[in-house]
Amino acid sequence: MPREITSFSNTTVKLLRSLRDKKARRAERLFLAEGLRIVTEARDEGRLPSILAFAEAGASHPLAQEIIGQVEAAGGDTILTTPDILTKMSGKSNPQALVAAYEQPDTALSAIDRTTSDIWFVGQSLRDPGNIGTILRTGDAVGAGGLILLDDSADPFAVETVRASMGALFTQKLAQADWGDFLHWLRSGDGQLVGTSLQTDHDYRDAPYTAPCFLLVGNEAQGLPEEYEAACDLLVRIPMHGRADSLNAAIAAAVTAYQVRSGWRNR
Amino acid sequence: MPREITSFSNTTVKLLRSLRDKKARRAERLFLAEGLRIVTEARDEGRLPSILAFAEAGASHPLAQEIIGQVEAAGGDTILTTPDILTKMSGKSNPQALVAAYEQPDTALSAIDRTTSDIWFVGQSLRDPGNIGTILRTGDAVGAGGLILLDDSADPFAVETVRASMGALFTQKLAQADWGDFLHWLRSGDGQLVGTSLQTDHDYRDAPYTAPCFLLVGNEAQGLPEEYEAACDLLVRIPMHGRADSLNAAIAAAVTAYQVRSGWRNR
Repeated sequence: MPREITSFSNTTVKLLRSLRDKKARRAERLFLAEGLRIVTEARDEGRLPSILAFAEAGASHPLAQEIIGQVEAAGGDTILTTPDILTKMSGKSNPQALVAAYEQPDTALSAIDRTTSDIWFVGQSLRDPGNIGTILRTGDAVGAGGLILLDDSADPFAVETVRASMGALFTQKLAQADWGDFLHWLRSGDGQLVGTSLQTDHDYRDAPYTAPCFLLVGNEAQGLPEEYEAACDLLVRIPMHGRADSLNAAIAAAVTAYQVRSGWRNR
Repeated sequence: MPREITSFSNTTVKLLRSLRDKKARRAERLFLAEGLRIVTEARDEGRLPSILAFAEAGASHPLAQEIIGQVEAAGGDTILTTPDILTKMSGKSNPQALVAAYEQPDTALSAIDRTTSDIWFVGQSLRDPGNIGTILRTGDAVGAGGLILLDDSADPFAVETVRASMGALFTQKLAQADWGDFLHWLRSGDGQLVGTSLQTDHDYRDAPYTAPCFLLVGNEAQGLPEEYEAACDLLVRIPMHGRADSLNAAIAAAVTAYQVRSGWRNR
Protein backbone atom coordinates (compact mmCIF):
# COMPACT_ATOMS: atom_id res chain seq x y z
CA MET A 1 0.00 0.00 0.00
CA PRO A 2 1.24 3.49 -0.79
CA ARG A 3 2.13 5.80 2.05
CA GLU A 4 -0.23 8.73 2.29
CA ILE A 5 1.48 12.11 2.50
CA THR A 6 -0.48 15.31 2.92
CA SER A 7 2.16 17.64 4.27
CA PHE A 8 4.37 19.89 2.19
CA SER A 9 7.04 19.61 4.86
CA ASN A 10 7.30 15.85 4.60
CA THR A 11 10.90 14.72 4.04
CA THR A 12 10.17 12.75 0.87
CA VAL A 13 8.17 15.61 -0.62
CA LYS A 14 11.11 17.88 0.06
CA LEU A 15 13.52 15.35 -1.43
CA LEU A 16 11.53 15.02 -4.65
CA ARG A 17 11.22 18.78 -4.99
CA SER A 18 14.96 19.19 -4.39
CA LEU A 19 15.78 16.97 -7.37
CA ARG A 20 15.14 19.87 -9.76
CA ASP A 21 18.46 21.09 -8.47
CA LYS A 22 21.71 19.65 -9.78
CA LYS A 23 23.49 19.61 -6.43
CA ALA A 24 20.70 17.64 -4.82
CA ARG A 25 20.60 15.20 -7.74
CA ARG A 26 24.30 14.62 -7.38
CA ALA A 27 24.17 14.23 -3.61
CA GLU A 28 21.25 11.83 -3.69
CA ARG A 29 22.32 10.02 -6.89
CA LEU A 30 18.72 10.30 -8.06
CA PHE A 31 16.90 12.03 -10.91
CA LEU A 32 13.29 12.85 -11.71
CA ALA A 33 11.09 11.60 -14.51
CA GLU A 34 7.48 12.61 -14.90
CA GLY A 35 4.46 11.10 -16.56
CA LEU A 36 3.00 7.65 -17.12
CA ARG A 37 4.50 7.34 -20.56
CA ILE A 38 8.11 7.70 -19.54
CA VAL A 39 7.65 5.67 -16.35
CA THR A 40 6.15 2.89 -18.47
CA GLU A 41 8.98 3.02 -20.97
CA ALA A 42 11.49 2.83 -18.14
CA ARG A 43 9.63 -0.15 -16.70
CA ASP A 44 9.69 -1.87 -20.10
CA GLU A 45 13.47 -1.44 -19.99
CA GLY A 46 13.52 -3.06 -16.57
CA ARG A 47 13.93 0.19 -14.65
CA LEU A 48 11.68 0.95 -11.70
CA PRO A 49 11.84 4.16 -9.66
CA SER A 50 13.05 4.25 -6.08
CA ILE A 51 10.20 6.64 -5.27
CA LEU A 52 6.92 7.01 -7.12
CA ALA A 53 4.49 9.77 -6.14
CA PHE A 54 0.98 10.31 -7.47
CA ALA A 55 -2.46 11.63 -6.57
CA GLU A 56 -5.64 9.56 -6.72
CA ALA A 57 -6.39 10.58 -10.30
CA GLY A 58 -3.01 9.33 -11.47
CA ALA A 59 -3.15 6.08 -9.55
CA SER A 60 -6.47 5.09 -11.07
CA HIS A 61 -5.03 4.32 -14.50
CA PRO A 62 -4.66 0.52 -14.87
CA LEU A 63 -1.10 0.82 -16.15
CA ALA A 64 -0.18 3.13 -13.26
CA GLN A 65 -1.69 0.62 -10.83
CA GLU A 66 0.37 -2.14 -12.33
CA ILE A 67 3.59 -0.14 -12.06
CA ILE A 68 2.81 0.99 -8.51
CA GLY A 69 2.46 -2.67 -7.61
CA GLN A 70 5.79 -3.47 -9.23
CA VAL A 71 7.57 -0.63 -7.46
CA GLU A 72 6.21 -1.88 -4.13
CA ALA A 73 7.18 -5.46 -4.89
CA ALA A 74 10.70 -4.24 -5.65
CA GLY A 75 10.90 -2.46 -2.29
CA GLY A 76 10.39 1.03 -3.69
CA ASP A 77 8.62 3.86 -1.95
CA THR A 78 5.12 4.61 -3.31
CA ILE A 79 3.44 7.79 -2.21
CA LEU A 80 -0.18 8.86 -2.48
CA THR A 81 -0.38 12.58 -2.11
CA THR A 82 -2.66 15.54 -2.83
CA PRO A 83 -2.95 17.26 -6.23
CA ASP A 84 -1.52 20.40 -4.61
CA ILE A 85 1.63 18.71 -3.38
CA LEU A 86 1.98 16.91 -6.70
CA THR A 87 1.83 20.24 -8.48
CA LYS A 88 4.58 21.55 -6.25
CA MET A 89 6.72 18.55 -7.11
CA SER A 90 6.17 18.47 -10.85
CA GLY A 91 5.86 22.20 -11.46
CA LYS A 92 2.79 21.43 -13.55
CA SER A 93 -0.81 21.47 -12.52
CA ASN A 94 -1.77 17.97 -13.59
CA PRO A 95 -3.46 15.75 -11.02
CA GLN A 96 -2.85 12.73 -13.27
CA ALA A 97 0.88 13.22 -13.12
CA LEU A 98 3.28 10.61 -11.84
CA VAL A 99 6.49 11.89 -10.32
CA ALA A 100 9.24 9.30 -10.15
CA ALA A 101 12.76 9.38 -8.75
CA TYR A 102 15.24 6.96 -10.28
CA GLU A 103 18.72 5.98 -9.26
CA GLN A 104 21.36 7.51 -11.50
CA PRO A 105 23.17 4.82 -13.46
CA ASP A 106 26.94 4.51 -13.30
CA THR A 107 28.34 6.98 -15.86
CA ALA A 108 31.94 5.79 -15.80
CA LEU A 109 33.46 5.09 -19.21
CA SER A 110 34.25 1.61 -17.99
CA ALA A 111 30.52 0.92 -17.93
CA ILE A 112 30.36 1.37 -21.73
CA ASP A 113 30.70 -1.73 -23.87
CA ARG A 114 31.52 -0.32 -27.30
CA THR A 115 30.85 -3.63 -29.01
CA THR A 116 27.14 -3.33 -28.32
CA SER A 117 26.56 -0.71 -31.01
CA ASP A 118 28.08 0.64 -34.23
CA ILE A 119 27.37 4.30 -33.46
CA TRP A 120 28.06 6.35 -30.35
CA PHE A 121 27.58 10.04 -29.73
CA VAL A 122 30.22 12.05 -27.91
CA GLY A 123 29.26 15.53 -26.73
CA GLN A 124 31.92 18.13 -25.95
CA SER A 125 30.80 20.68 -23.36
CA LEU A 126 27.16 20.52 -24.40
CA ARG A 127 25.48 23.21 -22.33
CA ASP A 128 21.83 22.81 -23.23
CA PRO A 129 20.02 20.05 -21.32
CA GLY A 130 17.36 19.98 -24.04
CA ASN A 131 20.00 19.30 -26.70
CA ILE A 132 21.39 16.45 -24.63
CA GLY A 133 17.93 14.93 -24.31
CA THR A 134 17.30 15.34 -28.03
CA ILE A 135 20.61 13.64 -28.87
CA LEU A 136 19.65 10.73 -26.61
CA ARG A 137 16.26 10.49 -28.34
CA THR A 138 17.98 10.57 -31.75
CA GLY A 139 20.45 7.97 -30.52
CA ASP A 140 17.63 5.60 -29.70
CA ALA A 141 16.03 6.16 -33.11
CA VAL A 142 19.24 5.69 -35.10
CA GLY A 143 20.30 2.66 -33.09
CA ALA A 144 23.22 4.31 -31.32
CA GLY A 145 24.63 2.82 -28.13
CA GLY A 146 24.65 5.96 -26.07
CA LEU A 147 26.16 9.33 -25.35
CA ILE A 148 29.50 10.15 -23.77
CA LEU A 149 29.54 13.66 -22.33
CA LEU A 150 32.91 15.37 -22.14
CA ASP A 151 34.31 18.15 -20.02
CA ASP A 152 31.80 20.60 -18.57
CA SER A 153 28.69 19.35 -20.30
CA ALA A 154 25.36 20.01 -18.61
CA ASP A 155 23.94 17.47 -16.20
CA PRO A 156 22.27 14.70 -18.26
CA PHE A 157 19.91 14.03 -15.36
CA ALA A 158 18.28 17.47 -15.50
CA VAL A 159 14.50 17.43 -15.77
CA GLU A 160 14.69 19.12 -19.21
CA THR A 161 17.04 16.39 -20.48
CA VAL A 162 14.82 13.60 -19.24
CA ARG A 163 11.81 15.23 -20.87
CA ALA A 164 13.49 15.90 -24.23
CA SER A 165 14.89 12.37 -24.30
CA MET A 166 11.34 10.98 -24.40
CA GLY A 167 12.41 7.87 -22.54
CA ALA A 168 15.72 7.40 -24.35
CA LEU A 169 17.57 8.18 -21.13
CA PHE A 170 16.54 4.67 -20.14
CA THR A 171 17.59 2.99 -23.38
CA GLN A 172 20.82 4.82 -24.19
CA LYS A 173 24.02 4.39 -22.19
CA LEU A 174 25.43 7.53 -20.64
CA ALA A 175 28.98 8.30 -19.62
CA GLN A 176 30.76 11.39 -18.33
CA ALA A 177 34.49 11.95 -18.72
CA ASP A 178 37.08 14.57 -19.46
CA TRP A 179 38.74 14.70 -22.85
CA GLY A 180 42.02 13.09 -21.79
CA ASP A 181 40.37 10.11 -20.13
CA PHE A 182 37.99 9.68 -23.03
CA LEU A 183 40.78 9.68 -25.59
CA HIS A 184 42.75 7.15 -23.56
CA TRP A 185 39.71 4.92 -23.26
CA LEU A 186 38.86 5.32 -26.97
CA ARG A 187 42.35 4.32 -28.10
CA SER A 188 42.37 1.28 -25.86
CA GLY A 189 40.07 -0.46 -28.36
CA ASP A 190 38.47 -0.15 -31.78
CA GLY A 191 36.76 3.09 -32.63
CA GLN A 192 36.73 5.78 -35.29
CA LEU A 193 36.44 9.31 -33.95
CA VAL A 194 34.48 11.50 -36.37
CA GLY A 195 34.04 15.26 -36.07
CA THR A 196 31.93 17.61 -38.14
CA SER A 197 33.95 20.61 -39.20
CA LEU A 198 34.14 23.42 -41.71
CA GLN A 199 37.93 22.91 -41.86
CA THR A 200 37.64 20.02 -44.29
CA ASP A 201 36.38 19.43 -47.81
CA HIS A 202 35.38 15.89 -47.00
CA ASP A 203 31.64 15.75 -47.65
CA TYR A 204 29.82 13.85 -44.91
CA ARG A 205 28.07 11.78 -47.58
CA ASP A 206 31.28 10.37 -49.06
CA ALA A 207 33.22 9.54 -45.93
CA PRO A 208 34.49 6.07 -45.03
CA TYR A 209 32.78 5.53 -41.70
CA THR A 210 33.80 2.44 -39.78
CA ALA A 211 32.18 0.84 -36.75
CA PRO A 212 32.20 1.52 -33.92
CA CYS A 213 31.89 5.10 -35.04
CA PHE A 214 32.12 7.82 -32.36
CA LEU A 215 30.44 11.01 -33.56
CA LEU A 216 31.92 13.99 -31.77
CA VAL A 217 29.48 16.87 -31.32
CA GLY A 218 30.93 20.24 -30.39
CA ASN A 219 29.73 22.84 -27.91
CA GLU A 220 26.64 24.78 -29.06
CA ALA A 221 28.38 28.15 -29.22
CA GLN A 222 32.03 27.37 -29.97
CA GLY A 223 31.98 24.11 -31.87
CA LEU A 224 34.92 21.74 -31.50
CA PRO A 225 38.26 23.08 -30.22
CA GLU A 226 41.14 22.67 -32.68
CA GLU A 227 42.85 20.11 -30.48
CA TYR A 228 39.74 17.94 -30.55
CA GLU A 229 39.45 18.21 -34.32
CA ALA A 230 43.10 17.25 -34.65
CA ALA A 231 42.51 14.08 -32.65
CA CYS A 232 39.71 12.93 -34.95
CA ASP A 233 40.29 10.03 -37.34
CA LEU A 234 37.92 11.64 -39.81
CA LEU A 235 36.58 15.15 -40.24
CA VAL A 236 33.49 15.60 -42.35
CA ARG A 237 31.65 18.62 -43.57
CA ILE A 238 27.91 19.09 -43.78
CA PRO A 239 27.29 21.48 -46.68
CA MET A 240 25.89 24.87 -45.67
CA HIS A 241 23.78 26.39 -48.41
CA GLY A 242 22.77 29.62 -46.70
CA ARG A 243 24.34 32.33 -44.60
CA ALA A 244 24.78 30.27 -41.46
CA ASP A 245 28.02 28.43 -40.81
CA SER A 246 26.66 25.86 -38.40
CA LEU A 247 23.72 23.74 -37.43
CA ASN A 248 22.20 23.22 -34.01
CA ALA A 249 24.37 20.60 -32.25
CA ALA A 250 21.62 18.00 -32.01
CA ILE A 251 20.68 18.55 -35.67
CA ALA A 252 24.28 18.10 -36.86
CA ALA A 253 24.55 14.93 -34.78
CA ALA A 254 21.34 13.53 -36.26
CA VAL A 255 22.12 14.37 -39.88
CA THR A 256 25.56 12.77 -39.58
CA ALA A 257 24.36 9.69 -37.70
CA TYR A 258 21.60 8.96 -40.20
CA GLN A 259 24.13 9.34 -43.01
CA VAL A 260 26.53 6.94 -41.29
CA ARG A 261 23.80 4.35 -40.95
CA SER A 262 22.64 5.00 -44.49
CA GLY A 263 26.09 4.36 -45.91
CA TRP A 264 26.18 1.00 -44.15
CA ARG A 265 22.74 0.10 -45.34
CA ASN A 266 23.69 -2.53 -47.87
CA ARG A 267 26.70 -4.06 -46.24
CA MET B 1 22.73 60.85 -31.71
CA PRO B 2 21.00 58.24 -29.54
CA ARG B 3 18.33 59.36 -27.12
CA GLU B 4 19.39 58.87 -23.54
CA ILE B 5 16.88 57.05 -21.38
CA THR B 6 17.44 56.46 -17.69
CA SER B 7 13.92 55.82 -16.48
CA PHE B 8 12.28 52.41 -16.20
CA SER B 9 8.94 54.07 -16.79
CA ASN B 10 9.92 55.49 -20.17
CA THR B 11 7.42 54.52 -22.88
CA THR B 12 9.99 52.96 -25.19
CA VAL B 13 11.53 50.93 -22.38
CA LYS B 14 8.06 49.66 -21.55
CA LEU B 15 7.39 48.89 -25.20
CA LEU B 16 10.59 46.88 -25.60
CA ARG B 17 9.90 44.96 -22.40
CA SER B 18 6.35 44.25 -23.51
CA LEU B 19 7.59 42.51 -26.67
CA ARG B 20 8.35 39.36 -24.67
CA ASP B 21 4.59 38.96 -24.71
CA LYS B 22 2.81 37.59 -27.78
CA LYS B 23 -0.15 39.94 -27.56
CA ALA B 24 2.09 42.99 -27.51
CA ARG B 25 4.15 41.65 -30.40
CA ARG B 26 1.00 41.18 -32.42
CA ALA B 27 -0.42 44.59 -31.54
CA GLU B 28 2.81 46.42 -32.31
CA ARG B 29 3.81 44.23 -35.28
CA LEU B 30 7.30 44.13 -33.82
CA PHE B 31 9.60 41.46 -32.43
CA LEU B 32 12.80 41.41 -30.38
CA ALA B 33 16.25 40.23 -31.31
CA GLU B 34 19.22 40.44 -28.99
CA GLY B 35 22.95 40.58 -29.44
CA LEU B 36 25.42 42.10 -31.86
CA ARG B 37 25.75 38.91 -33.85
CA ILE B 38 22.11 38.60 -34.83
CA VAL B 39 21.69 42.35 -35.35
CA THR B 40 24.70 42.25 -37.68
CA GLU B 41 23.34 39.28 -39.60
CA ALA B 42 20.03 41.07 -40.00
CA ARG B 43 21.83 44.16 -41.23
CA ASP B 44 23.76 42.06 -43.75
CA GLU B 45 20.38 40.89 -45.03
CA GLY B 46 19.30 44.50 -45.37
CA ARG B 47 17.18 44.54 -42.24
CA LEU B 48 17.58 47.30 -39.68
CA PRO B 49 15.64 47.52 -36.42
CA SER B 50 13.01 50.16 -35.76
CA ILE B 51 14.40 50.55 -32.25
CA LEU B 52 17.89 49.73 -31.06
CA ALA B 53 18.76 49.99 -27.36
CA PHE B 54 22.17 49.58 -25.75
CA ALA B 55 24.31 50.72 -22.84
CA GLU B 56 27.68 52.40 -23.21
CA ALA B 57 29.62 49.14 -23.13
CA GLY B 58 27.59 47.77 -26.05
CA ALA B 59 27.81 50.93 -28.12
CA SER B 60 31.59 51.01 -27.95
CA HIS B 61 32.08 48.07 -30.30
CA PRO B 62 33.02 49.40 -33.78
CA LEU B 63 30.47 47.18 -35.51
CA ALA B 64 27.77 48.30 -33.08
CA GLN B 65 28.70 51.93 -33.76
CA GLU B 66 28.40 51.34 -37.47
CA ILE B 67 24.96 49.76 -37.13
CA ILE B 68 23.74 52.45 -34.72
CA GLY B 69 24.68 54.99 -37.38
CA GLN B 70 22.80 53.03 -40.03
CA VAL B 71 19.70 52.75 -37.88
CA GLU B 72 19.76 56.50 -37.29
CA ALA B 73 20.29 57.21 -40.98
CA ALA B 74 17.27 55.05 -41.76
CA GLY B 75 15.13 57.02 -39.31
CA GLY B 76 15.16 54.37 -36.57
CA ASP B 77 15.12 55.05 -32.86
CA THR B 78 18.45 54.54 -31.09
CA ILE B 79 18.50 54.48 -27.32
CA LEU B 80 21.39 54.77 -24.93
CA THR B 81 20.32 53.44 -21.57
CA THR B 82 21.74 52.12 -18.30
CA PRO B 83 22.98 48.55 -17.77
CA ASP B 84 20.15 48.07 -15.27
CA ILE B 85 17.42 49.01 -17.70
CA LEU B 86 19.07 46.93 -20.41
CA THR B 87 19.04 43.94 -18.08
CA LYS B 88 15.32 44.45 -17.50
CA MET B 89 14.74 44.49 -21.25
CA SER B 90 16.89 41.55 -22.22
CA GLY B 91 16.34 39.40 -19.14
CA LYS B 92 20.10 38.85 -19.08
CA SER B 93 22.71 40.72 -17.12
CA ASN B 94 24.98 41.68 -19.98
CA PRO B 95 25.94 45.35 -20.31
CA GLN B 96 27.27 44.63 -23.81
CA ALA B 97 23.87 43.50 -25.02
CA LEU B 98 22.03 45.12 -27.87
CA VAL B 99 18.26 44.92 -27.75
CA ALA B 100 16.58 45.48 -31.09
CA ALA B 101 12.96 45.65 -32.15
CA TYR B 102 12.20 44.75 -35.78
CA GLU B 103 9.06 45.09 -37.80
CA GLN B 104 7.36 41.75 -38.38
CA PRO B 105 7.44 40.80 -42.06
CA ASP B 106 4.26 40.02 -43.94
CA THR B 107 3.47 36.34 -43.26
CA ALA B 108 0.72 35.92 -45.83
CA LEU B 109 1.10 32.91 -48.14
CA SER B 110 0.90 35.30 -51.06
CA ALA B 111 4.26 36.71 -49.96
CA ILE B 112 5.92 33.34 -50.68
CA ASP B 113 7.47 32.84 -54.10
CA ARG B 114 7.88 29.10 -54.33
CA THR B 115 10.15 29.33 -57.33
CA THR B 116 12.92 30.84 -55.23
CA SER B 117 13.84 27.52 -53.58
CA ASP B 118 13.56 23.77 -54.10
CA ILE B 119 12.80 22.96 -50.47
CA TRP B 120 10.25 24.47 -48.09
CA PHE B 121 9.32 23.45 -44.58
CA VAL B 122 5.71 23.32 -43.49
CA GLY B 123 4.99 23.00 -39.77
CA GLN B 124 1.67 21.73 -38.51
CA SER B 125 0.73 23.09 -35.07
CA LEU B 126 4.33 23.30 -33.92
CA ARG B 127 4.08 24.32 -30.26
CA ASP B 128 7.70 24.78 -29.27
CA PRO B 129 9.20 28.15 -30.22
CA GLY B 130 12.67 26.63 -29.94
CA ASN B 131 11.78 23.94 -32.49
CA ILE B 132 10.50 26.59 -34.87
CA GLY B 133 13.74 28.53 -34.55
CA THR B 134 15.81 25.37 -35.04
CA ILE B 135 13.85 24.51 -38.19
CA LEU B 136 14.50 28.01 -39.54
CA ARG B 137 18.21 27.61 -38.78
CA THR B 138 18.23 24.22 -40.51
CA GLY B 139 16.33 25.74 -43.42
CA ASP B 140 19.05 28.31 -43.93
CA ALA B 141 21.74 25.62 -43.79
CA VAL B 142 20.03 23.24 -46.20
CA GLY B 143 19.11 26.02 -48.60
CA ALA B 144 15.38 25.94 -47.98
CA GLY B 145 13.21 28.91 -48.87
CA GLY B 146 11.37 29.22 -45.61
CA LEU B 147 8.81 27.86 -43.19
CA ILE B 148 5.04 27.89 -43.51
CA LEU B 149 3.36 27.49 -40.12
CA LEU B 150 -0.07 25.92 -40.13
CA ASP B 151 -2.99 26.05 -37.74
CA ASP B 152 -2.20 26.88 -34.12
CA SER B 153 1.57 26.87 -34.32
CA ALA B 154 3.47 28.94 -31.78
CA ASP B 155 4.35 32.53 -32.55
CA PRO B 156 7.47 32.52 -34.78
CA PHE B 157 8.39 35.95 -33.41
CA ALA B 158 8.86 34.72 -29.84
CA VAL B 159 12.22 35.57 -28.28
CA GLU B 160 13.08 31.85 -28.00
CA THR B 161 12.42 31.35 -31.73
CA VAL B 162 14.56 34.29 -32.73
CA ARG B 163 17.37 33.03 -30.51
CA ALA B 164 17.23 29.41 -31.73
CA SER B 165 17.08 30.57 -35.35
CA MET B 166 20.55 32.12 -34.98
CA GLY B 167 19.70 34.79 -37.51
CA ALA B 168 17.81 32.54 -39.93
CA LEU B 169 14.60 34.38 -39.10
CA PHE B 170 16.05 37.11 -41.30
CA THR B 171 17.06 34.83 -44.19
CA GLN B 172 14.13 32.41 -44.30
CA LYS B 173 10.66 33.39 -45.46
CA LEU B 174 7.88 32.88 -42.96
CA ALA B 175 4.18 32.37 -43.58
CA GLN B 176 1.22 31.55 -41.37
CA ALA B 177 -1.94 29.92 -42.67
CA ASP B 178 -4.57 27.37 -41.84
CA TRP B 179 -4.53 23.97 -43.48
CA GLY B 180 -7.32 24.68 -45.96
CA ASP B 181 -5.79 27.90 -47.23
CA PHE B 182 -2.37 26.33 -47.44
CA LEU B 183 -3.63 23.37 -49.46
CA HIS B 184 -5.47 25.67 -51.84
CA TRP B 185 -2.36 27.79 -52.29
CA LEU B 186 -0.12 24.73 -52.71
CA ARG B 187 -2.32 23.23 -55.42
CA SER B 188 -2.44 26.49 -57.32
CA GLY B 189 1.11 25.83 -58.53
CA ASP B 190 3.89 23.25 -58.61
CA GLY B 191 4.77 21.55 -55.38
CA GLN B 192 5.21 18.09 -53.90
CA LEU B 193 3.84 17.70 -50.39
CA VAL B 194 5.94 15.22 -48.42
CA GLY B 195 5.12 13.89 -44.97
CA THR B 196 7.16 11.68 -42.66
CA SER B 197 5.05 8.85 -41.35
CA LEU B 198 5.19 5.39 -39.82
CA GLN B 199 2.18 4.42 -41.97
CA THR B 200 4.32 3.78 -45.03
CA ASP B 201 7.11 1.42 -46.05
CA HIS B 202 8.62 3.99 -48.34
CA ASP B 203 12.13 4.57 -47.02
CA TYR B 204 13.01 8.27 -46.97
CA ARG B 205 16.28 7.44 -48.76
CA ASP B 206 14.59 5.92 -51.83
CA ALA B 207 11.79 8.39 -52.40
CA PRO B 208 11.32 10.36 -55.64
CA TYR B 209 11.46 13.91 -54.32
CA THR B 210 10.63 16.65 -56.81
CA ALA B 211 11.14 20.38 -56.51
CA PRO B 212 9.68 22.47 -55.08
CA CYS B 213 9.41 19.97 -52.26
CA PHE B 214 7.26 20.95 -49.26
CA LEU B 215 8.30 18.96 -46.17
CA LEU B 216 5.40 18.70 -43.77
CA VAL B 217 6.46 18.45 -40.13
CA GLY B 218 3.83 17.30 -37.64
CA ASN B 219 3.02 18.57 -34.17
CA GLU B 220 5.59 17.59 -31.52
CA ALA B 221 3.23 15.42 -29.48
CA GLN B 222 0.67 14.10 -31.96
CA GLY B 223 2.49 14.00 -35.30
CA LEU B 224 0.51 14.56 -38.47
CA PRO B 225 -3.28 14.08 -38.42
CA GLU B 226 -4.56 11.36 -40.81
CA GLU B 227 -6.23 13.90 -43.05
CA TYR B 228 -2.93 15.70 -43.53
CA GLU B 229 -1.08 12.51 -44.32
CA ALA B 230 -3.78 11.61 -46.83
CA ALA B 231 -3.26 14.90 -48.65
CA CYS B 232 0.47 14.28 -49.08
CA ASP B 233 1.87 13.41 -52.51
CA LEU B 234 4.50 11.28 -50.86
CA LEU B 235 4.83 9.69 -47.43
CA VAL B 236 8.27 8.59 -46.33
CA ARG B 237 9.49 6.70 -43.33
CA ILE B 238 12.64 7.38 -41.36
CA PRO B 239 13.76 4.02 -39.95
CA MET B 240 13.53 3.73 -36.17
CA HIS B 241 16.11 1.33 -34.79
CA GLY B 242 15.31 1.59 -31.09
CA ARG B 243 12.27 1.69 -28.85
CA ALA B 244 11.09 5.15 -29.83
CA ASP B 245 8.56 5.59 -32.61
CA SER B 246 9.39 9.19 -33.44
CA LEU B 247 12.08 11.83 -33.63
CA ASN B 248 12.00 15.38 -32.38
CA ALA B 249 10.13 17.44 -35.00
CA ALA B 250 13.12 19.61 -35.92
CA ILE B 251 15.37 16.53 -36.16
CA ALA B 252 12.97 14.70 -38.48
CA ALA B 253 12.72 17.83 -40.64
CA ALA B 254 16.51 18.13 -40.87
CA VAL B 255 17.20 14.46 -41.62
CA THR B 256 14.58 14.47 -44.38
CA ALA B 257 15.67 17.79 -45.88
CA TYR B 258 19.32 16.80 -46.04
CA GLN B 259 18.31 13.54 -47.69
CA VAL B 260 16.19 15.38 -50.26
CA ARG B 261 19.11 17.62 -51.14
CA SER B 262 21.48 14.67 -51.15
CA GLY B 263 19.37 12.78 -53.65
CA TRP B 264 19.46 15.77 -55.99
CA ARG B 265 23.17 16.14 -55.60
CA ASN B 266 24.24 14.92 -59.00
CA ARG B 267 21.43 16.15 -61.13
